[in-house]
Amino acid sequence: MALAFTGSPLDRADHVRADPDALAGHMNWRARLLLLDGLMPGVDELGGLAWGSLADAPEDCELVFLGLEAGESGSARACFAAVPQSGDSSPRLANPALWQLMATLPPGDLALYGGARSICDWHARHRFCSSCGGNTTIAKGGWQRGCGTCGAQHFPRVDPVTIMLVENDGRLMLGRGLGWPEGRFSTLAGFVEPGESIEEAVAREVLEESGLRVRDVQYVASQPWPFPSQLMLGCYAMTDDDEVVIDTTELAEGRWFTRDEVAAALADDPDAPFGAPPRHAIANHLMQWWLDR
Amino acid sequence: MALAFTGSPLDRADHVRADPDALAGHMNWRARLLLLDGLMPGVDELGGLAWGSLADAPEDCELVFLGLEAGESGSARACFAAVPQSGDSSPRLANPALWQLMATLPPGDLALYGGARSICDWHARHRFCSSCGGNTTIAKGGWQRGCGTCGAQHFPRVDPVTIMLVENDGRLMLGRGLGWPEGRFSTLAGFVEPGESIEEAVAREVLEESGLRVRDVQYVASQPWPFPSQLMLGCYAMTDDDEVVIDTTELAEGRWFTRDEVAAALADDPDAPFGAPPRHAIANHLMQWWLDR
Repeated sequence: MALAFTGSPLDRADHVRADPDALAGHMNWRARLLLLDGLMPGVDELGGLAWGSLADAPEDCELVFLGLEAGESGSARACFAAVPQSGDSSPRLANPALWQLMATLPPGDLALYGGARSICDWHARHRFCSSCGGNTTIAKGGWQRGCGTCGAQHFPRVDPVTIMLVENDGRLMLGRGLGWPEGRFSTLAGFVEPGESIEEAVAREVLEESGLRVRDVQYVASQPWPFPSQLMLGCYAMTDDDEVVIDTTELAEGRWFTRDEVAAALADDPDAPFGAPPRHAIANHLMQWWLDR
Repeated sequence: MALAFTGSPLDRADHVRADPDALAGHMNWRARLLLLDGLMPGVDELGGLAWGSLADAPEDCELVFLGLEAGESGSARACFAAVPQSGDSSPRLANPALWQLMATLPPGDLALYGGARSICDWHARHRFCSSCGGNTTIAKGGWQRGCGTCGAQHFPRVDPVTIMLVENDGRLMLGRGLGWPEGRFSTLAGFVEPGESIEEAVAREVLEESGLRVRDVQYVASQPWPFPSQLMLGCYAMTDDDEVVIDTTELAEGRWFTRDEVAAALADDPDAPFGAPPRHAIANHLMQWWLDR
């Protein structure tokens, strides 16, 4: 099964971004504007993303070129989004309306929205130059910002995050984060830091959060996650350790679960010993992968 | 063989960063300061990284806590680096002296230096808040910056980059970048963008740069690359296409090479039809992996 937020139908058309004439040529009456209220998507009567035309964009707003609609090469329609006034200052707090949309938007629309959300949020939070404090302006169709004072170029940010299954002899170690409801468990996760490979980041995060030393780290799958712009790196690791010593600044609980218990949770069995992560999260996908292999 | 820039001997000691008392306790006469001239490392008489004490740091400089020296848990010595006046504005241009050091520094030292370089460079280029333009100050032992004006928190940046072998029937497609010397070829590579999985980024980059449509993208290995702070995601993909149509804004040439030709290049055979990427680059590692499998 494809992971949520993957499979955007747009052709990113990289060559258009750097070509001001081509970009201007695509900003015509046929171009589509993704309708956003802040960073929330609009929904049309069929349950898909709502679109308008460039005439719907606020005057003097910054426009991001999202790409070309696939399938009509000769007469491709360009898709844009307008950068909102402000970004999301607490992107990791769940917005219930958005959470619900994730379950109902068609997969291609969800992927398109996720990418647009990440880049629009980045623009809204990067109006100033981190090098000199000067004003920055949008460049290359929204895939760059430039500082008018010192000339520094800034590029959209993607933060790699490791997220991992940890197995000991047929059981998975899962954690309950601080503040999560009782009985809700998921895989451990953490940002990759400068100077680490994926495999090193997995080993460090698992050791920090659970005290377990892992071996044989294996990459499984990746997923873009637009809150605000992570690249989730799904991995699988083995441990010979049994005793879980949680980092109490990160986790409320860390426990081992058997294959049957994980299967019951993924099946939403009311008797399951824990509640599984939602289907659009790579943690759910990793657990399913582990059961299926 | 371990990849260059992996295998740092330091314990990042995450719990120390967020604990001001613990951090202050480690800033003692036993603590070590990584000696840097700008972002260039110093080298001691044995060819390893040169270290001093905190007394060698410029007054009022920002200090990054790199971690604890492994092996002496009870009396672990803390390692620091001082943020230089300026970052590297052209990190991708080769510095010949640094290039040479990469071949001679012990692997653990090279990894430690790479991580320190990335984070020091990030601090030097993030003295201002991208949200409001205000001044930022170092926080959490150097693993965060905070804005004194709007309160925004900023975190060190790691940019995921896909780099990939592309095979058609036992031959690899390699490219020569614009401005590279004649006969020098390497794997294609490109930044992962917001809204893409690794696998989608590989397919897009290969199509953009060479016109080839890939299938069966497989992750091979990852490597931190400190110029300024990439996470290289080494992959392998198959194509059924044969005709290479290069993007002339990125590449000077794109060509197919047989297994024997790749083996000759990696062996530095003077009769090899191309020059291979240097040993510390993941491109070299990927080609060796392809020959060995």
